[in-house]
Amino acid sequence: MAVLEAAEFLHVNTPESWVVLASNSLSLLLIDHANCERKAASSALSMIYRYEERSDFAMKLSRIVREEMRHFEQVHALLRALQIEYVHLSPSKYARALHSYARERSPTKFDDLLIAAIIEARSYERFELLEEVLEGRVAKLYGKLKESEHRHFLVYLDLAQSLDEETVITTRVQELLSHEAQLITRFDDQFRFHSGDPKDTKG
Amino acid sequence: MAVLEAAEFLHVNTPESWVVLASNSLSLLLIDHANCERKAASSALSMIYRYEERSDFAMKLSRIVREEMRHFEQVHALLRALQIEYVHLSPSKYARALHSYARERSPTKFDDLLIAAIIEARSYERFELLEEVLEGRVAKLYGKLKESEHRHFLVYLDLAQSLDEETVITTRVQELLSHEAQLITRFDDQFRFHSGDPKDTKG
Repeated sequence: MAVLEAAEFLHVNTPESWVVLASNSLSLLLIDHANCERKAASSALSMIYRYEERSDFAMKLSRIVREEMRHFEQVHALLRALQIEYVHLSPSKYARALHSYARERSPTKFDDLLIAAIIEARSYERFELLEEVLEGRVAKLYGKLKESEHRHFLVYLDLAQSLDEETVITTRVQELLSHEAQLITRFDDQFRFHSGDPKDTKG
Repeated sequence: MAVLEAAEFLHVNTPESWVVLASNSLSLLLIDHANCERKAASSALSMIYRYEERSDFAMKLSRIVREEMRHFEQVHALLRALQIEYVHLSPSKYARALHSYARERSPTKFDDLLIAAIIEARSYERFELLEEVLEGRVAKLYGKLKESEHRHFLVYLDLAQSLDEETVITTRVQELLSHEAQLITRFDDQFRFHSGDPKDTKG
């Protein structure tokens, strides 16, 4: 797989309407983002167990867990600094939808890794967009985080590629990316870090 | 709760027979120990979600997750250095038994924190014993880890105490510690980091 740029890897760009809504929903964006970091850590942690027969995975995944938790703490510190009160948010449908899609279509042993790579790539793309439209400390943090997301994206692809042939992985990743493109471009009435298009073009 | 020393906090000491067996089962000990660090991280991570209404918990628990993963990496590095091959081990019954016991006897909102405190205290006590009987890099690592375990033990107790009155917590912790003492002193034919007495005194 010769793809090394997260933005080129994805099939579609984030809709402009999502970026506009995100820049006007800073509290919601940051709270959901904190949850995303926690869930990314949890997902990497569960993969250490899932792929335990590959002990070379353990170190790489463990470092990702630590980095995601560090980001979690940075977002929490920012919430506190901006005096945004943490509230419970229902989880985003995005990651769950990707996993359900994979489970329903001949699951492979590397699906978890590919889905993690896709989520990291999408996060990278959104951090880059948000860095442009947001200001101050949030923009600065997002500029830094996007680099980590890109690194994690490459680590996950690399781990997947160590499990099977490149052609098999490429076919599967394209299938998952097609579905991801639908999730990102379809109308979504719930705003989250990974939500779809808030503008109902059919309406 | 005026208890600040993990070793005094526990009701019983580790049986001598466990220490002898552990010092003769280095591969098993280290592999199970790596799993314990991963599970400790996973448990702290799930508590961030469980106690999400207390956003002051988030930072402290997140730092514990990062530390446990750092320990996980250190144990994995040691396995590699000692050329011990990682193999799948069935999980220890210890933590599960503590949680089942708590669930069956009027669960409280701070049980998870108290059980985590107890596990950290027991780990501290065992690291101290192992530091004495083991040698070289393992002894050195265990000497360092025991200090973290003791710190985590205090953090968990402190978080529990912020949730309810000291007398309520003290009563519950004594109940859990009585059960923990049984798990540690009863005959256990499975050797793990937190297993019971390998010597069947009834036999």
